[in-house]
Amino acid sequence: MLTFIGLGLYDERSITIEGRDALRGADRAFMERYTSRLSGADRETLEAEHGIEIETRDRAGVERDPEAILAAAEREDVAFLTAGDPMISTTHVDLRLRAADRGIETRIVHGTTAEAAASSLTGLQNYRFGPATTLPFPYAHRADGLPASVSNTLDDNRDRGLHTLVYLDIKVGEGPTGEEPNNEEYMTADVAAELLSAEYDRLGVVVARAGSPDPRVEADSLSALANREFGDPLHLLVVPGELHQLESEALREFADAPAELTEPV
Amino acid sequence: MLTFIGLGLYDERSITIEGRDALRGADRAFMERYTSRLSGADRETLEAEHGIEIETRDRAGVERDPEAILAAAEREDVAFLTAGDPMISTTHVDLRLRAADRGIETRIVHGTTAEAAASSLTGLQNYRFGPATTLPFPYAHRADGLPASVSNTLDDNRDRGLHTLVYLDIKVGEGPTGEEPNNEEYMTADVAAELLSAEYDRLGVVVARAGSPDPRVEADSLSALANREFGDPLHLLVVPGELHQLESEALREFADAPAELTEPV
Repeated sequence: MLTFIGLGLYDERSITIEGRDALRGADRAFMERYTSRLSGADRETLEAEHGIEIETRDRAGVERDPEAILAAAEREDVAFLTAGDPMISTTHVDLRLRAADRGIETRIVHGTTAEAAASSLTGLQNYRFGPATTLPFPYAHRADGLPASVSNTLDDNRDRGLHTLVYLDIKVGEGPTGEEPNNEEYMTADVAAELLSAEYDRLGVVVARAGSPDPRVEADSLSALANREFGDPLHLLVVPGELHQLESEALREFADAPAELTEPV
Repeated sequence: MLTFIGLGLYDERSITIEGRDALRGADRAFMERYTSRLSGADRETLEAEHGIEIETRDRAGVERDPEAILAAAEREDVAFLTAGDPMISTTHVDLRLRAADRGIETRIVHGTTAEAAASSLTGLQNYRFGPATTLPFPYAHRADGLPASVSNTLDDNRDRGLHTLVYLDIKVGEGPTGEEPNNEEYMTADVAAELLSAEYDRLGVVVARAGSPDPRVEADSLSALANREFGDPLHLLVVPGELHQLESEALREFADAPAELTEPV
């Protein structure tokens, strides 16, 4: 049995009660920390909280060589942990398919997501978001300007008046020159705002430490946001499309948005 | 202090540990059950689990007359409970703004969402979903055919190759003739598939009881889904856009999708 468990957004208390019980009842637990991570709790804290040893796996240990995880799941109850929801990543669908191929039963325990938090904390309405995109580090993109995947998503959403959630690049165990086991980089929102503002100097909304007891939410022009600091990761950036009245009010009240940038349509 | 707490998707164990602690520490708790509900736990179960009395509020008691909630939050720690995440609804942004106007501090504790579950359980990739839409009961729509909001969202998403999550109408305390305190209706996925198939007979994916220990996920043509039954609510329907290889494999493996309807692009 292989149970995919979402750890939620921030620390050891972001997991659901169902997830906690599934983790505590598991014979063995693996955790990946390359698609996201909990910024408020490390592995040791999770182990102490849940009374189970947790083995971490890098990307290669999940994507290229999942044998240890699958072999264990054939014999006993294995928990596979991910920050956020466990399936908001192609990789883990792949792992679930491999498990199914071997006749291993799988189960998913959902976690809270950055996507819900981006809407919930900003007051921007969930049903007015288009597809999200991920902004890579320039060295990972290997070309000048924004990647087409980012520009196209922003443009297409904008054409429909929709908001865009921009995930910021995370590099764990990799760096500019390839594999770097000790490297851990989280793009901050000021860097992202700087990269975007070269082509899109419009309203942006930063969400820092979503899911923590004290998240920070600030709206201003991207070029203004590029000159601020937002503290510890993780950060997100939202580029709003058209604003409805209530969204405009929420951004002014909860994100200190300037009135001239938040005129409702 | 007014703390908006997401109860998550299914029962009293779908809440996060942080949410549970915030609820248990509250002086008073209100819950609305008109935007969604927990299908696996009633109010009494939540009260027993968390050791706090929970007062339910209908739509009018939140939107038109939130005075009791706000007055309480001025004096003591008030928890406001919603299934899913607490802010995936305009109403609650409005309540948060009213609280802020009165100088009441607010806080949001996120919950797991139907949106994440729709992606996670089907294997359809999160970043390939366009905006979601809600399919109303025909009597609420008051016209023949699908509402323009639904058709336009499906068409626009389809034009971009994107998937569409279709929320199914919920009526609690209202019915065909207006206010009906005892009415409780949840559109089922077979009814939704029937309504949609008149205009769009293509692949659909039903997700029934997302977040429960035994969710049901079935993919087929909408006209075929219209002839099945999916058990207790809540149900969701996803209308996929273009399928990538891994999405196609996931739908065949986990949703019994027919091969001829799931050719990857």
